[in-house]
Amino acid sequence: MSANWLDEIAWDADGLVPAIAQEAGTGKLLMLAWMNREALAETARSGRAVYWSRSRNKLWRKGEESGHVQSVREVRLDCDGDVVVLEVVQGGGIACHTGHARCFFRRLEGEAWVEVEPVLMDPNEIYKPGR
Amino acid sequence: MSANWLDEIAWDADGLVPAIAQEAGTGKLLMLAWMNREALAETARSGRAVYWSRSRNKLWRKGEESGHVQSVREVRLDCDGDVVVLEVVQGGGIACHTGHARCFFRRLEGEAWVEVEPVLMDPNEIYKPGR
Repeated sequence: MSANWLDEIAWDADGLVPAIAQEAGTGKLLMLAWMNREALAETARSGRAVYWSRSRNKLWRKGEESGHVQSVREVRLDCDGDVVVLEVVQGGGIACHTGHARCFFRRLEGEAWVEVEPVLMDPNEIYKPGR
Repeated sequence: MSANWLDEIAWDADGLVPAIAQEAGTGKLLMLAWMNREALAETARSGRAVYWSRSRNKLWRKGEESGHVQSVREVRLDCDGDVVVLEVVQGGGIACHTGHARCFFRRLEGEAWVEVEPVLMDPNEIYKPGR
């Protein structure tokens, strides 16, 4: 690949960069995942968010199992080139594997993390076998 | 320290967690930096964002040199406990050391990163010796 814009990313020692997904329009923060070079290249090419799953050690085309695809409106890079932001439209309105709209559903209250946003869909419904 | 809420963080191998700063009210994404346990504890206690500088290898009380302090309105944690979000009021309206309002001032256009937000203050003015 000769795409220079990918060379401007300050990939970490594992060849990854954190990627923040933010909802287009509302600015709501949905999630943070990781990308390798291939994931970012495919994201830019396809217009759909593709991450690198550190737990499964493979490309993770967001929504491939859940159907909750993220359509990418804009890609941003920070000053140091080591953080990417995706502005996305979240398919199904659910970004999180827990069935919450987004992953940041816990808030610090005093000395406790409190769940302050509802589960919109049972995870068993999201990841139905054979779906 | 016996604060259990800190034990719920999935600190990485270096004892760090990424922390995203988002502007209260507008939802504007300002920056991503890193925190260790001490930084997060002090942030919660003081109500001012404190990060861990990976380059300087020490606590970084945001604004200690620039004056651009971040007042924390809310702290969030994600589903896996490995990403923190701070909702902040950005002092001086400048989060980035480059003098941009925020670090995400570059947008991918075709195959190039293009600076699409202005510098609001000369970095030499921000980091004046003796300030």
